[in-house]
Amino acid sequence: MSTSRIRKEVDEALLAFVDRQRPTLLAISDDLTPLLSALDVLLAGGKRLRPAFCYWGWRAAGGADCAAIVQAAASLELLQASALIHDDVMDSSDTRRGQPSVHRRFEALHGAQSWPGDAEAFGSGAAILLGDLCLAWSSEMFETCGLGGDRRRHARDVYDMMRTEVMCGQYLDMLESTRGEATADTALRVVEYKSAKYTIERPLHLGAALAGARPDVTGALTAYGLPLGIAFQLRDDVLGVFGDPGETGKPAGDDLREGKRTVLIALTLERASSAQADAIQRRLGDPDLDRPGVDELRTIITETGGLAACEAMIDQYLTDAEKALTSAPVTPEAHQALSELAVAATTRSM
Amino acid sequence: MSTSRIRKEVDEALLAFVDRQRPTLLAISDDLTPLLSALDVLLAGGKRLRPAFCYWGWRAAGGADCAAIVQAAASLELLQASALIHDDVMDSSDTRRGQPSVHRRFEALHGAQSWPGDAEAFGSGAAILLGDLCLAWSSEMFETCGLGGDRRRHARDVYDMMRTEVMCGQYLDMLESTRGEATADTALRVVEYKSAKYTIERPLHLGAALAGARPDVTGALTAYGLPLGIAFQLRDDVLGVFGDPGETGKPAGDDLREGKRTVLIALTLERASSAQADAIQRRLGDPDLDRPGVDELRTIITETGGLAACEAMIDQYLTDAEKALTSAPVTPEAHQALSELAVAATTRSM
Repeated sequence: MSTSRIRKEVDEALLAFVDRQRPTLLAISDDLTPLLSALDVLLAGGKRLRPAFCYWGWRAAGGADCAAIVQAAASLELLQASALIHDDVMDSSDTRRGQPSVHRRFEALHGAQSWPGDAEAFGSGAAILLGDLCLAWSSEMFETCGLGGDRRRHARDVYDMMRTEVMCGQYLDMLESTRGEATADTALRVVEYKSAKYTIERPLHLGAALAGARPDVTGALTAYGLPLGIAFQLRDDVLGVFGDPGETGKPAGDDLREGKRTVLIALTLERASSAQADAIQRRLGDPDLDRPGVDELRTIITETGGLAACEAMIDQYLTDAEKALTSAPVTPEAHQALSELAVAATTRSM
Repeated sequence: MSTSRIRKEVDEALLAFVDRQRPTLLAISDDLTPLLSALDVLLAGGKRLRPAFCYWGWRAAGGADCAAIVQAAASLELLQASALIHDDVMDSSDTRRGQPSVHRRFEALHGAQSWPGDAEAFGSGAAILLGDLCLAWSSEMFETCGLGGDRRRHARDVYDMMRTEVMCGQYLDMLESTRGEATADTALRVVEYKSAKYTIERPLHLGAALAGARPDVTGALTAYGLPLGIAFQLRDDVLGVFGDPGETGKPAGDDLREGKRTVLIALTLERASSAQADAIQRRLGDPDLDRPGVDELRTIITETGGLAACEAMIDQYLTDAEKALTSAPVTPEAHQALSELAVAATTRSM
């Protein structure tokens, strides 16, 4: 299948899954409609990267096209929806994928209905619950994909490990942002668990495990997926500071307002003069950071050479991934698709 | 097995499961230790009601004692831990099971370490992530219990439905508290999904499904479990207002401070004079409600006859449950145990 064809089938599988849940919710109460609407809006966006890697992990290990692998792969989008919804609550983010974040949607519902009490608490409560529902539904969708036996048992071990890793990685990410002391090394550790494994390596392993992959295939997918995953997150960090809001779906400089302690920031601080370092410590994490403030930080990140150092790391990790792919014992179609996905995951205008 | 013996085995299964996760987390980072400590403290408490009902659902349907059913049953405690952790964030509760709530623990850690930034945001972020981890681990523990084949597939359907129901029920609960307009009928709908099904009916069904129960057994477990579950929640609501903090693990009158729109409150409002109703609307949900305020509300709930009406409902639902149990096609041991559990779940001093 082509990349756009997979995307379409993943979209259809997600829609079909949510449509199977819809009558259950409405039988409990019409009042649950806003949960479904919020999920519909969130799921309409997204690049379906994790399902694509899962699908190509399956194909790389010799799995044949079928609806079951598409459903298993699509379940990763529900897991990601859960992570995004909860992440936005934790970061107090206003937008996601170019739309109001889920907690802000429910805050607005509270206001529109003129309900008494605390709109913000209602918004974050609803978002916590919808995130929980997406997390529960992601495992339901995975478990009911139709692939059974020893392979699913082995794949479930991958799935379980992936969830533990991403949640721990997110805690460490929050911890580093709170402490404000991340070095490039500690920031890279966060990237490995929160992002590289979760977004690329584990989805590849999941598909591969479902196809009953040999250990050499799984190893090759790690050699390709882990550096690519790091490059993906470093690119995301650069876009979080310099990206076009029209492309990222987030306001310009949002990562700066959230005070994210990324590898990019650590590389900048390593190279900053004390005046530049002071400016970063003062402005980073300021929720009211305005456009001139964003521009000042961008200038520092560029002028110190932090940006160039980060771009060089991206290039190096991408080269490592491509090199690993060259010798990977995977099918020719998978080789081609994984090569294209490496570009798609790290392209500047993504 | 006796009730205390099941409890002990569930405790051991939980400890063993968390101990299997511990090295995974510590291999990622020592910084994850506080997540494990917080979970250890939370899991040390709790009455293990849901595992007990799951176990006796299994035995009722003719399942034989084994480690696998204990692990499947114990997984419900991780699901409950997730619900409690997130619930406490949503309600801004300070305590749980007589200990600081998870978000308050992490807030205190932030303070003790003198980290910069927002201690409260760090606390709730950590609690959201630990709740997510517990939710993921609950399904992992269930799926790896060792019971396989068609029965687990059928049981998984019960498990999935239970999670959807409880999350939707919690949303409706929050919605009713926000609107402040709950009638006894709408409050009962919340009780059914958030509590009666989740705490009693579905755990019974889960155990029964794993044992391959006949439909008449499943039906009998509903006839017993649903009214008992309602009685359980109504008793919990009464204890939330009148309970001894030493027994409930919560400060006196905490449900009143949280503004919970329970059946007890609805029954009181139905019977209140306009002065009494005004006092309730004014004081209910006041986070700073002091002891005289709690006492005033208690007096109104008692003097209106709201309390007596609620106690009468508890008695009626309990009678219905006991009656259903009398004719239930279950084993004699299960009959005896379910009869004792009905008392344990609704006793005044619980």
